[in-house]
Amino acid sequence: MPLSANNPDRKSWLHVDKNSDFPIQNIPFGVFLTRDDIITIGTRIGDTAIDLGALHQLGYFDGIALTDDIFLQDTLNDFIADGRKTWRAVRNRIAEIFDDNNDSLKQNKKHKEIVLFRLDEIEMQLPVQVGDYTDFYSSIEHATNVSSIFKSADAELAPNWLQMPIGYHGRSSSVIPSGISIHRPQGQILQNGKTNPVFGPSKLVDFELEMAFITTAANDLGEPIPIEEAEEYIFGLVLLNDWSARDIQEWEQMPFGPFLAKSFASSISPWIVTLDALEPYRVESPKPKKPQLNYLKYKGKKSYDINLEVAIQPQGAKETVVSNSNFKYMYWNMVQQLAHHTINGCSVNSGDLMGSGAISGPTPDTYGSMLELTWKGENLIKMTDGSERAAINDNDTVIMRGYCEKDGTRIGFGEVSTKLLPVFNKK
Amino acid sequence: MPLSANNPDRKSWLHVDKNSDFPIQNIPFGVFLTRDDIITIGTRIGDTAIDLGALHQLGYFDGIALTDDIFLQDTLNDFIADGRKTWRAVRNRIAEIFDDNNDSLKQNKKHKEIVLFRLDEIEMQLPVQVGDYTDFYSSIEHATNVSSIFKSADAELAPNWLQMPIGYHGRSSSVIPSGISIHRPQGQILQNGKTNPVFGPSKLVDFELEMAFITTAANDLGEPIPIEEAEEYIFGLVLLNDWSARDIQEWEQMPFGPFLAKSFASSISPWIVTLDALEPYRVESPKPKKPQLNYLKYKGKKSYDINLEVAIQPQGAKETVVSNSNFKYMYWNMVQQLAHHTINGCSVNSGDLMGSGAISGPTPDTYGSMLELTWKGENLIKMTDGSERAAINDNDTVIMRGYCEKDGTRIGFGEVSTKLLPVFNKK
Repeated sequence: MPLSANNPDRKSWLHVDKNSDFPIQNIPFGVFLTRDDIITIGTRIGDTAIDLGALHQLGYFDGIALTDDIFLQDTLNDFIADGRKTWRAVRNRIAEIFDDNNDSLKQNKKHKEIVLFRLDEIEMQLPVQVGDYTDFYSSIEHATNVSSIFKSADAELAPNWLQMPIGYHGRSSSVIPSGISIHRPQGQILQNGKTNPVFGPSKLVDFELEMAFITTAANDLGEPIPIEEAEEYIFGLVLLNDWSARDIQEWEQMPFGPFLAKSFASSISPWIVTLDALEPYRVESPKPKKPQLNYLKYKGKKSYDINLEVAIQPQGAKETVVSNSNFKYMYWNMVQQLAHHTINGCSVNSGDLMGSGAISGPTPDTYGSMLELTWKGENLIKMTDGSERAAINDNDTVIMRGYCEKDGTRIGFGEVSTKLLPVFNKK
Repeated sequence: MPLSANNPDRKSWLHVDKNSDFPIQNIPFGVFLTRDDIITIGTRIGDTAIDLGALHQLGYFDGIALTDDIFLQDTLNDFIADGRKTWRAVRNRIAEIFDDNNDSLKQNKKHKEIVLFRLDEIEMQLPVQVGDYTDFYSSIEHATNVSSIFKSADAELAPNWLQMPIGYHGRSSSVIPSGISIHRPQGQILQNGKTNPVFGPSKLVDFELEMAFITTAANDLGEPIPIEEAEEYIFGLVLLNDWSARDIQEWEQMPFGPFLAKSFASSISPWIVTLDALEPYRVESPKPKKPQLNYLKYKGKKSYDINLEVAIQPQGAKETVVSNSNFKYMYWNMVQQLAHHTINGCSVNSGDLMGSGAISGPTPDTYGSMLELTWKGENLIKMTDGSERAAINDNDTVIMRGYCEKDGTRIGFGEVSTKLLPVFNKK
């Protein structure tokens, strides 16, 4: 099926700002609560949210094999499980419906009143029920920085790092959409020079700038996904802030990795941008520094040129951009991650979330965490209000943004924005 | 609400063998497919499976606040979310219905034909949709054995081990019920003395003898569960075989713990035995070897005396029991695990599964894995057919069983039995 929705020449009859992340070439998918308190699956063009459940009931998807209630759901899991052919047919149809040359909905005032919403009339929800959340550790710059910070300046990567996309299981229950505030976590912390830990609030709450892909139902238990098929099972991507409490992490993480240091929250942007929409922005992945085993070898461009930024906004002050990175820096790409994840027969379901790990680039201004940006507190970061940061303060909001741009078309992710509240106090 | 279902003097009008795990004092919960291909929630007395959905439709739960379809579901998640008061009311009512002194169902042949099934007429399913699966590492004997095997005979526990119940996130998608066969996993293995890994079948597939508890919806994100409340949120327990591929594990696990070495399968027994049914078998936990932080301090008996065994059955041969352990050996108990898991605000949902980690006791015949039983292959284990094992062979079935016994009443878990098939081959 051709990706006609990607046609760069198409204009929409809906208004789209010049720098919008959501031109008619994007057509992301999300879930929102409407002004009538109905939950529906929707898309977005410019600053208009579109109720796909209502559009479907009005017959605009006639001819595409869809169940009646496929969009009248509180998650995208079932729609994603329908597979790539269906996603493409729906996305192409949405492009047609909102094409400036198509009068059917454009001229139907009554229908437009039913299906179109201003952004301030809706409330974005978590787009999928996350079955399993996996976090990889696939940026070589990030892994190298972490090794250097915690060991020594010339520390090497762990011997397995160049052989496989290292990953670990994360906590699904604490994956939240942009806009939900979180509390500073408490836990065990080992103070410098002490042998016994103390209990208290984390003093080193950090972000990790990540992206995550969302899968469709891919394989039965026991059956690996060959790398050349992996792309078929990737629905799309979101921005991910993999919140981390560094002091809790340092004490707990031997020998089984981060646990409570990360399970207090992982925030994602609410609009899933499809892999199809990102098609024009494919780029080569970094060259392997070591030969890779056959099941990890792939052909073609499997990385994407996605500009990323992180900003910190102290309460009552303007935000400060603290990092500019790019998804293309990832040493291990998504098809390698998915092939590796399933090589042992592990099953992947619709709505599984797979994070990249912090995405750091080659220069200090591209690092994907405060740990690296401040080099574990050596270099404080100055905010617009004059205050300085080694980590995230109470009532700071951390905002991540991402977009692709080429030949005048910009496809973006919007943002994931999360405020860190003080420690939870039971009233 | 009194636990009248636990009355040790009650007899059922259903036949119960003397050594059955499922006397009328047990009343576990599970999900099964009936001979009519209907999926329902059920319980079991002796070797009779009982369709709770049908019992409810016939009015036997009248007077208990339950939605009409609470048992007509393919998972127990909604029932478990109803909370402890409801579980107790239902379990007490089931005890009454099947009490030998109660004629209402006993004398109703037509109703009995609808609600009762022989075990060979049903097919047990996964009892819950597992939202998140956490695996702890809470047996001090197991953790000490692992340290000794991989480091040196006098290696100590990691410094954090005595301060917190170490845990890590597992993979939910590969949690399967007893009876489902699995394939030997493939992956990267680093052979002795080599620097680059090879790809191939794991040669060291192992079991871990564990138990796991299943939670109800417990807390909102950000809000810890105090240890004195933790027990309220534990619905019941199952046996867990946390399958492990030791060679894959050894190479992948630094720095973030086991990933593909375990995500190929985790098998559980299909009947959830409620914490209420285990009430008579409470025992003290081992004395702490180090003072513990306040949020981990508890009062009373929070461990349970549950006898555990593991058997290996080669194809066509009789089984050999290779380990006899006990759940009471756990250094960290369930309320400590749940309080620790949520101390950072991590939210816990209905149907979450929390494994104990391998349960090893103080003597070599009580060790909970082949890794420990064979001391990494030093001492092979002899099967009834004369063959020897350092690990699980193709077509071996691993069977775990567990039961409590006191004052003539035995409450058991049945078994979790899983056959290991050869490496998956795409036809």
